[in-house]
Amino acid sequence: MDVAYTSEVLARVRATNPLVQCLTNSVVTGFTANVLLALGASPAMTDVPRESGPFAEIASAVLINTGTPHAEQRNAMAEAAKAAHRAGTPWVLDPVAVGSLPVRTALARGLLDFRPTAVRGNPSEIIALAELGGGGRGTDAIDTPDDALPAGAALAASCGAVTAVSGRVDLVTDGTRVIRSASGTSLLTKITGGGCALGAVTAAFLAVAGADRSGGEPADGPGAVLNATAAATVVYTAAAEMAAESAGGPGTFAGLFLDALAAVDTADIERRAALS
Amino acid sequence: MDVAYTSEVLARVRATNPLVQCLTNSVVTGFTANVLLALGASPAMTDVPRESGPFAEIASAVLINTGTPHAEQRNAMAEAAKAAHRAGTPWVLDPVAVGSLPVRTALARGLLDFRPTAVRGNPSEIIALAELGGGGRGTDAIDTPDDALPAGAALAASCGAVTAVSGRVDLVTDGTRVIRSASGTSLLTKITGGGCALGAVTAAFLAVAGADRSGGEPADGPGAVLNATAAATVVYTAAAEMAAESAGGPGTFAGLFLDALAAVDTADIERRAALS
Amino acid sequence: MDVAYTSEVLARVRATNPLVQCLTNSVVTGFTANVLLALGASPAMTDVPRESGPFAEIASAVLINTGTPHAEQRNAMAEAAKAAHRAGTPWVLDPVAVGSLPVRTALARGLLDFRPTAVRGNPSEIIALAELGGGGRGTDAIDTPDDALPAGAALAASCGAVTAVSGRVDLVTDGTRVIRSASGTSLLTKITGGGCALGAVTAAFLAVAGADRSGGEPADGPGAVLNATAAATVVYTAAAEMAAESAGGPGTFAGLFLDALAAVDTADIERRAALS
Repeated sequence: MDVAYTSEVLARVRATNPLVQCLTNSVVTGFTANVLLALGASPAMTDVPRESGPFAEIASAVLINTGTPHAEQRNAMAEAAKAAHRAGTPWVLDPVAVGSLPVRTALARGLLDFRPTAVRGNPSEIIALAELGGGGRGTDAIDTPDDALPAGAALAASCGAVTAVSGRVDLVTDGTRVIRSASGTSLLTKITGGGCALGAVTAAFLAVAGADRSGGEPADGPGAVLNATAAATVVYTAAAEMAAESAGGPGTFAGLFLDALAAVDTADIERRAALS
Repeated sequence: MDVAYTSEVLARVRATNPLVQCLTNSVVTGFTANVLLALGASPAMTDVPRESGPFAEIASAVLINTGTPHAEQRNAMAEAAKAAHRAGTPWVLDPVAVGSLPVRTALARGLLDFRPTAVRGNPSEIIALAELGGGGRGTDAIDTPDDALPAGAALAASCGAVTAVSGRVDLVTDGTRVIRSASGTSLLTKITGGGCALGAVTAAFLAVAGADRSGGEPADGPGAVLNATAAATVVYTAAAEMAAESAGGPGTFAGLFLDALAAVDTADIERRAALS
Repeated sequence: MDVAYTSEVLARVRATNPLVQCLTNSVVTGFTANVLLALGASPAMTDVPRESGPFAEIASAVLINTGTPHAEQRNAMAEAAKAAHRAGTPWVLDPVAVGSLPVRTALARGLLDFRPTAVRGNPSEIIALAELGGGGRGTDAIDTPDDALPAGAALAASCGAVTAVSGRVDLVTDGTRVIRSASGTSLLTKITGGGCALGAVTAAFLAVAGADRSGGEPADGPGAVLNATAAATVVYTAAAEMAAESAGGPGTFAGLFLDALAAVDTADIERRAALS
């Protein structure tokens, strides 16, 4: 994974406008859709039963976020994950507050059966999710992304997912390789949806990552999912850094961040990427 | 329909603050309410059964948007449309993704029985809706607003609705007359709710268009609904043009657009209206 | 209640980041979360049954807002209010449109049994709520905050709540003492959530007001709830005044208001507080 690949995948998103279906929490729907639009993707929040499944078959990618899991949406999520799995549509699971709350924890356990392409969350959510999958270890500490590395390996083993963990230094792993990205700004933690929308951006990047929907080798090679997931983080945090430089606080930052997502280019990515 | 009428109807909205009930999708509720407030109208998102019907009787106008049609909201929408129809409250239908998705398509078919005052959508949605009403013809092409003209005529014939079709050149028709409006900015397509909120603004304009709730001749004449619907588009796109001139991208555009909706005046409308 | 106490409670919010659970309407979820984040609190919109109760036991404070009361959320609200009452978690009720609409009116009647710590609304909502509690008197007039003073006394008597009434001059009362605050800007009425988010801020201030969860005397004295509720109004309206000075309209105001909530300090509060 390098800067050139990041720029190339971003260019594909802008050229092909992948259709990203989002079943997400009620707090961040608008912001998530605006992030996808700014990036060049096409959002669709199709999250009712009998529509979510057929839509997941034709969508370019799917995001499922467990933030406000009302009963009807839970059914729609199960339907969408199942359809995405069958159709080979890449899909991202964002297990908001899984582990500490019972309804979403049971929901996430069921969703893992449909093998998410990638999982994105904070360290404690990732650790809790991995336990549901039969691996990983709980912790009471304030976790850092590196604390979630064993959980990432467990998720790779149990359901084949690439794991992205958010923190001061973001981390992406497929259980074998680890990519760390240090760009970003703490302002992302002062607006709602700062993490959730990255899940949607990850879905957009997976949509164009050259993955073969028939299950064969991705055109971008065996590391395509890992690399595209990391590329999403790099673009997202580089744009956030750009916005932070002229923001007067979290309110103006949110608008400037969308502007930056629409404007970020190869030179910006080269200047700001901090990969290791 | 001319610029003078557009300014006059806008002035009435600002003077009387019509109460616009919105039953809309979960992605754009906040933005839609903010657009109505900036314009001078009073939004109310009353969308639960047993409240939506009584409220539609007293509201100045109603918007029904099928973007995220959860079961309870579907029931509330049917109740509101029925009550609006009976009480003579003008109401607008925005058939988001109707035609391609089954739940909302069935919903829209039922809502047409309550004869929307106006319908607003993109070309393919309008064409799909007209087919439900028994007229119009399907198309697989990428549609332009003019492609939807026969569908507009069909909707006028089957349910008496004026049709507004969004595109690079917007189009409003009552099946006989056609008004085209070329003002606007592509940034409206880069923010979520850019189309949906126009449905709410259309409802606000219909509320003050001199339509007679008893079913008689509108005070503004037989073309009142057509003219008010076109006026809503002109004000909305003129404000969008103003905002685009100083926006740095879609994020700052959204805020500046609300500022412009609050500030747009007769001189701005005269300068920017591009009617034919 | 004075400026020094206001600054002190704000500093506690920023130092301890209280976890504020919000069960609120679908229009303002995003804005409410952003207001809490800007202030320094931690929002959590946990509003599904079987999660809302357990969460209310561990949350620092709870907000319940009746703006879009869907059936599942109504159940979650009852569960959360009951749990908050039992656990001693301070909670705020914002009775949006109670009185005029049946579903939320019945909901609010039931919620009063769990004795909200504070109630926030406009005058007519407060008057309607007090009638449900067995006190107060209805009115058909356009009400001012002072018109709701008897209702505030009735709510204090019937359920022990402090009442905050929004208007050009805001008013807070425990039935005995009355605090009036004249800072603010009319732009708060031109953005959706301008009132609703104050309910969430009030919850955040109550969380750190030294109230004893075991039911004993608050550390901040017997007037702790009254004083913290008034302090929330002062901080909120002072920040709004700051934002209004450089806003070009309601759209840019919303972003600048969040910036101001993150930046407002003791000097700002001293300069802008207008208490009586």
